[in-house]
Amino acid sequence: MFIAALDIGGTKMAACIADASGPLLRVTQATQRSGPLDTIARQGLRLIDACCEQLGIDPALVASVGVSSCGPFALRDGLLGFMPPNLCGGLANGDDLPNDWTFLPLEVVLRERFSTVNIVNDCVAGLHGERAFGHAPANSIYVTWSTGIGFGLCVDGHILNGKANNAGHASHMLLTDDEAARCGCGNQGDLEGLLGGRNFEKRLGKPLAVIFSAARDGDTEALNTVAYAAHWFGRALYNLVSILDTEAIFVGGSVWRHNEDLLAPLVQQEISTRFEALTIGVQVQGAVLGELVTDLGAFALVMPQPWIEGWRTQKPWTTLESIALAD
Amino acid sequence: MFIAALDIGGTKMAACIADASGPLLRVTQATQRSGPLDTIARQGLRLIDACCEQLGIDPALVASVGVSSCGPFALRDGLLGFMPPNLCGGLANGDDLPNDWTFLPLEVVLRERFSTVNIVNDCVAGLHGERAFGHAPANSIYVTWSTGIGFGLCVDGHILNGKANNAGHASHMLLTDDEAARCGCGNQGDLEGLLGGRNFEKRLGKPLAVIFSAARDGDTEALNTVAYAAHWFGRALYNLVSILDTEAIFVGGSVWRHNEDLLAPLVQQEISTRFEALTIGVQVQGAVLGELVTDLGAFALVMPQPWIEGWRTQKPWTTLESIALAD
Repeated sequence: MFIAALDIGGTKMAACIADASGPLLRVTQATQRSGPLDTIARQGLRLIDACCEQLGIDPALVASVGVSSCGPFALRDGLLGFMPPNLCGGLANGDDLPNDWTFLPLEVVLRERFSTVNIVNDCVAGLHGERAFGHAPANSIYVTWSTGIGFGLCVDGHILNGKANNAGHASHMLLTDDEAARCGCGNQGDLEGLLGGRNFEKRLGKPLAVIFSAARDGDTEALNTVAYAAHWFGRALYNLVSILDTEAIFVGGSVWRHNEDLLAPLVQQEISTRFEALTIGVQVQGAVLGELVTDLGAFALVMPQPWIEGWRTQKPWTTLESIALAD
Repeated sequence: MFIAALDIGGTKMAACIADASGPLLRVTQATQRSGPLDTIARQGLRLIDACCEQLGIDPALVASVGVSSCGPFALRDGLLGFMPPNLCGGLANGDDLPNDWTFLPLEVVLRERFSTVNIVNDCVAGLHGERAFGHAPANSIYVTWSTGIGFGLCVDGHILNGKANNAGHASHMLLTDDEAARCGCGNQGDLEGLLGGRNFEKRLGKPLAVIFSAARDGDTEALNTVAYAAHWFGRALYNLVSILDTEAIFVGGSVWRHNEDLLAPLVQQEISTRFEALTIGVQVQGAVLGELVTDLGAFALVMPQPWIEGWRTQKPWTTLESIALAD
């Protein structure tokens, strides 16, 4: 028996096939940006086929696919599709995209081929990965801080989906009324508008890497910017802790990974200095799994439970081969 | 077979006994505020006994108790107790209380008598009530806006508990840095500090009823205050919708109930004007069940599933008799 994982990002797509022993091969390609509305879903099917072909597996033997995708999602006729602003030219701010897409079908196309289809947001997939193969406890938050900011939320051992699988869009939580902190969703002053890598760099007028480097050299203005970032990031995490009563917070993404030394103590302080009854024992820590966390999470969505223990022990993904296909 | 419900509030406690046909009797008493640490838990047992005695039922036949209690909660040796600021004189701002309590055991005492004990926050109990006997869908928020503000949160049909049953303390979500909006938890600018009835009236210098009445007469300053309240309340609800992807929001509590006509359209607008992908179809509405919603929710925690359908149809709580015991 084989299962598939599909990871649909704004710039890159990855398909992966696994059996009980672990993931066998990963195939990637730039995400297509023009054509009919089902272009991306069908590209996903082709990547899965390409993966099977390389492995010499009959694609008909793959009955289940777990999907980690950029969002947000919307339901049409009870089936999930998605409307990512960074792929859909028909949405606001899509002037630089070669299409007029506003909504892309996904589940309806995948169900033509697979009997089991489970689609979640990429950060929700990340949390499924950390829960299955890392150390995330029953009440935990997974957050990726890079170009954008995304969340996966787990309460009482249940990873939250919501009415259209959009739970975890917590970066659209409003924290201030700062008009300069504009988010692609139209908000001013939400977490993504304040600190999403793309928005933050645009507002600062220089790359975050330059600022964090200057902060390490003791530059006062740069240190103030780091403190500002940690303040609002920490406040968003505190808000989530007070709402969900979570225990552990796992942070990944490029902004965090490269600057955890500077950010972690300040972010922790934003949480630990608040109402003790709600925040005692809450720990902010780096995500355990690396770049493959969303692929692993997508597998975890459709994986037979007995496989999980084996993978946890063997960590077969550490030797996974990846092939990049031409566009 | 009989079950018990216990509703522990800052000023009043209620005990109720039910069988399959519905709740049989409710006994209330002022919550005790001095004595040993187990005073309140033992008062709860006594009220249940008093209820049984009035009904002529052997208390030994009552094996399960559902508890709706003010919080926050904390775990000691794996068992839930609570540390409500309005009952514990040993906590900050407790100068007017005749005790030095900081933590009150609850579960450990109730387990001496009951084989099944399920304890949740009062607003979480309210949502259990609305789910069991009202119309709350699988992704919904229940919020009470009165002296304080409390939430129950349901995602994917699961009512959130969190690591120490404190999920739903969303009124400690920080919305501004307004130093005048002080909350009992130490925050400045969280929802409870901004709009919790007690805090808001203190800041305004007059009763909310007076202000809402003036607003109905067209007074400009009062209308501005109503708009201010709706703005921040609506923003908190929008934040929760973006985090949890909920569908319906049920609001109760005295502040809302008396002023729903003025507040509802403004609060709805705060949500509906935000990112359509996350907010479309989200409806703010009055809670369906009345004053007994938390008692009914406490029953729902420990009720055999077949009873629920019968109660939904018969609404036996509408004729429930209540007896107030002397202090």
